[in-house]
Amino acid sequence: MFKINENYLKLPGSYLFSTIAKKVAAYTEAHPKADIIRLGIGDVTQPIAPAILEAVHKATDEMGTSQGFHGYAPDLGYEFLRSVIAREDFQSRGCDISADEIFVSDGAKCDCGNIQEIFSLDNRVAVCDPVYPVYVDSNIMAGRGGVYDTVTERFSDIIYMPCTAENNFAPQLPEETPDLIYLCFPNNPTGSVLTKDQLQQWVDYANKNGAVILYDAAYEAYISEDNVPHSIYECQGARTCAIEFRSFSKNAGFTGMRLGFTVVPKDLKCGDVMLHTLWARRHGTKYNGAPYIIQKAGEAVYSPEGKAQLKEQVAYYMKNARVIYDGLKAAGYTVSGGVNSPYIWMKTPDGMSSWEFFDYLLERANVVGTPGSGFGPSGEGYFRLTAFGTYENTVRAVERVRGI
Amino acid sequence: MFKINENYLKLPGSYLFSTIAKKVAAYTEAHPKADIIRLGIGDVTQPIAPAILEAVHKATDEMGTSQGFHGYAPDLGYEFLRSVIAREDFQSRGCDISADEIFVSDGAKCDCGNIQEIFSLDNRVAVCDPVYPVYVDSNIMAGRGGVYDTVTERFSDIIYMPCTAENNFAPQLPEETPDLIYLCFPNNPTGSVLTKDQLQQWVDYANKNGAVILYDAAYEAYISEDNVPHSIYECQGARTCAIEFRSFSKNAGFTGMRLGFTVVPKDLKCGDVMLHTLWARRHGTKYNGAPYIIQKAGEAVYSPEGKAQLKEQVAYYMKNARVIYDGLKAAGYTVSGGVNSPYIWMKTPDGMSSWEFFDYLLERANVVGTPGSGFGPSGEGYFRLTAFGTYENTVRAVERVRGI
Repeated sequence: MFKINENYLKLPGSYLFSTIAKKVAAYTEAHPKADIIRLGIGDVTQPIAPAILEAVHKATDEMGTSQGFHGYAPDLGYEFLRSVIAREDFQSRGCDISADEIFVSDGAKCDCGNIQEIFSLDNRVAVCDPVYPVYVDSNIMAGRGGVYDTVTERFSDIIYMPCTAENNFAPQLPEETPDLIYLCFPNNPTGSVLTKDQLQQWVDYANKNGAVILYDAAYEAYISEDNVPHSIYECQGARTCAIEFRSFSKNAGFTGMRLGFTVVPKDLKCGDVMLHTLWARRHGTKYNGAPYIIQKAGEAVYSPEGKAQLKEQVAYYMKNARVIYDGLKAAGYTVSGGVNSPYIWMKTPDGMSSWEFFDYLLERANVVGTPGSGFGPSGEGYFRLTAFGTYENTVRAVERVRGI
Repeated sequence: MFKINENYLKLPGSYLFSTIAKKVAAYTEAHPKADIIRLGIGDVTQPIAPAILEAVHKATDEMGTSQGFHGYAPDLGYEFLRSVIAREDFQSRGCDISADEIFVSDGAKCDCGNIQEIFSLDNRVAVCDPVYPVYVDSNIMAGRGGVYDTVTERFSDIIYMPCTAENNFAPQLPEETPDLIYLCFPNNPTGSVLTKDQLQQWVDYANKNGAVILYDAAYEAYISEDNVPHSIYECQGARTCAIEFRSFSKNAGFTGMRLGFTVVPKDLKCGDVMLHTLWARRHGTKYNGAPYIIQKAGEAVYSPEGKAQLKEQVAYYMKNARVIYDGLKAAGYTVSGGVNSPYIWMKTPDGMSSWEFFDYLLERANVVGTPGSGFGPSGEGYFRLTAFGTYENTVRAVERVRGI
């Protein structure tokens, strides 16, 4: 008789954003006239930029001709995309990353979820708390969680690094030594960043302790301050200890287009084995490449027109972030983030729990946010709002929140 | 110090098609003027059909407007696609499958590779031999392989079911009882099929023994004979024992578009736990949906225009299959497949090994095929040719093979 992977049963509840979607759907069904504004899930709202649309149309026409038809893509992505990524995202910032260290994929979520497969099940995992749920959940599913404690809401084998107001939402080096360290900066959900000096400490720590940093830089396009690194490879020594995940979702609005990439430097080794080889093998065996027309869309992100249009798009969302940040602050809320990030992290009022505030906001203001506790126990009492709505809705949402 | 997943090191060599690509690249570099015809990897060559291109252009235009922009897709795929799949591929054939049992993905390869995650590591896996490498490799990577024997070229914990000329390339019920049974019909690589009665025996066997059949029906569009089932759900009782994988790659030429789906009936349970719930959780946690414009392309596959155009495309490839089959047979080769399948399975001449014949054919005829031994030890002495080339190239390739 077949058996299931019992680790799945250890996962508490469903995936956070699925739960939110179901709650909102239930509310909408009960209140069909409610004018709900969604500042919850980190999904963008601005249309795809014209330069990108043009590239997609052109690639689609190619696919309709014998000469221009493209079948299976190269395992690791088309050279035209990998080389422009290496040049524009890394070499232009002084990072020593080459095109053949870039693995193109259908998104950072998939890569962040799948990367743990190439590591031993014995490895200890460290995560920030609060944290993007995929890092923890994918490790629980693989069997690296141990036992879940319903009181502390923590898994026994995971090392949690609290990020709270006390440490300015920047994790401290853990007391127990981890093997795999997930870091995400600019941070989801808190919107906090690390300075280059702070990130260098993590790189040094990882190299000293033989740990791998799994660095999620999906939000790097929102960095507005100097001295905040856009890539971990801006730090000395990162090539021997860090894998970096990038997304086109937030800098180019590709949440519905699906494109991302992962950088695995060839210097990152366990003994003689390059992690690059293992990740290439995973790609070759369990993945078949992103669609040609989507990779062409990705290439257009780096064209002069594409860059100019996307700079405006990011500025549009950052204006929203400013509206939320300033509006809530003026109303007396405690807020952070929003400066180098599209996320604003607010303290819930009057000691409400995160989910209480979620329901309160949904019912009283018809505004959807994300409960901080959904990102981990240290997120309790916090709430995440995103700048990815339209400007008009963002202004209205903030007015409504201020009015309740 | 972090450790890697040592199971990856058990994999013998690289992924088959990566190896072939490298061999061909090396040959091309050494012989830049060689006019190579590729009938190796199962990649299509006909352009995307006009009805599908039109749908992609339209969806792309939508993505450029505020009203038509689509961000994150629903976890399991858009309703418009899932419902047309349920109706056209299943209900129209009398299969009791509903839209919410369909999981849309970026391809059958990914789903075939990932499905094993929801099962226990203790489960025993049975595969046909020869077999599409993804089934075996993904289980080796997870740790279900045991020890590799370099003499038999088999893993100790995998149950191999030889498919040879003696059993007409149809596997027999295994002596050891497996928990997970991978079946692929029309078969890759042999091109053989099971009749409905034969498949019913497998369904009965699985239900009796508490096994799950992982049924890959990626080539169902090529079935030309009656009494060959297009879906395993044409068999009585399959809802309690079978998961089915489908692809748009071969019926609609989507190898470079990336779209597929998996059917997990809600009646398929381990105790109280529905596999549907586990697979939904995997999708929700580690996947973010196929691109909107690609799902729209998939919808167009089922439009009257799309269906008519794709019927022609499949007929085009089947004409190639006939050219290969008849041509090689007339030349005295032993061939099978090609009737309900785009694959022709030929015996290598003069007792050559599969890789010897690969090299021989590449050098003497500049024709690329796939060595049968790359699909498993029982494929040794065989060679796979595909009907997915152009008609002109297929005719030329067969002439060349006949001439050597």
